[in-house]
Amino acid sequence: MRILGIDPGIGICGFGLIEATTRAGAKALDFGAVTTTVDAPLPERLLELHDSLAQVFEETKPEVVAVEKLFFSKNVTTGIAVAEARGIVLLIAARLKLPVYEYSPNQIKLSLAGYGAATKTQIEEMVRVHLGLEKKPKPDDAADALAVAITCSFLYQNGADEKYKFSNSRKEKK
Amino acid sequence: MRILGIDPGIGICGFGLIEATTRAGAKALDFGAVTTTVDAPLPERLLELHDSLAQVFEETKPEVVAVEKLFFSKNVTTGIAVAEARGIVLLIAARLKLPVYEYSPNQIKLSLAGYGAATKTQIEEMVRVHLGLEKKPKPDDAADALAVAITCSFLYQNGADEKYKFSNSRKEKK
Repeated sequence: MRILGIDPGIGICGFGLIEATTRAGAKALDFGAVTTTVDAPLPERLLELHDSLAQVFEETKPEVVAVEKLFFSKNVTTGIAVAEARGIVLLIAARLKLPVYEYSPNQIKLSLAGYGAATKTQIEEMVRVHLGLEKKPKPDDAADALAVAITCSFLYQNGADEKYKFSNSRKEKK
Repeated sequence: MRILGIDPGIGICGFGLIEATTRAGAKALDFGAVTTTVDAPLPERLLELHDSLAQVFEETKPEVVAVEKLFFSKNVTTGIAVAEARGIVLLIAARLKLPVYEYSPNQIKLSLAGYGAATKTQIEEMVRVHLGLEKKPKPDDAADALAVAITCSFLYQNGADEKYKFSNSRKEKK
């Protein structure tokens, strides 16, 4: 199964495509990040993001999309821009009729490192090991996107996937 | 000048098109709201919103777009969905190369009622009076969208518009 993980952002948006076969292994088929013009007005950056990401979707041909769930606790202003960017990601996925799964940062850490308090460095190392890469994937945004994709592959194969799928309104999912 | 005000939302998104001539008056050309399927997954709702709104833009042919600035203080979960919806609005405006202005709730209240602590009912009444309507515009989301459009027409004609335009990155605007 081809899973495309996305780490949404307005300035830089990471993506990572994996081919998940067994729980024991997955292969990184493609990863990287798209960026937008720093000086451009926000609406134009969202358009740039949309067009670049639509191209990534077209080239990577995913069967499933995985994104991180948003929580705004640290920086609310940055958070709003991330949510706007995330709206673009979900729009593209919906237009292609792809199923979208979302996972909290805690679920991602649990899946990859076995405990929710894992550090960013530990997660990146687990991504590297799990995908059998020589070096840690760069940029960080791509590594984060791969981590979400790997989480999706684990939970999908455990049959625990429906819980994380956007299947109806948010309220009903609680 | 044809100003399209938008009140973004994932379930219901208000819009209001005004023709602004002088500070003393503006005419409501069109207003209403688009809705999305309550039971549909979030990504599909964003797609519905995109397609319905793109049609509103096409039919109303605005020259300028005005939206409310987001602040997340009350309900963070709702706020995330509103920001995702707002990303869609900005995307459509950017694709049509329309200038977008944003105003805080406080600026809108100040512009319409003269003080920032004005109630929702007072603002709606000011929208009605300013546009010379017999009844308060319905639904509330349309009235809110018209309030943003009127705010834009005031500040635009006062020459204070550039401050509120998305002209470069958010950080630089502070």
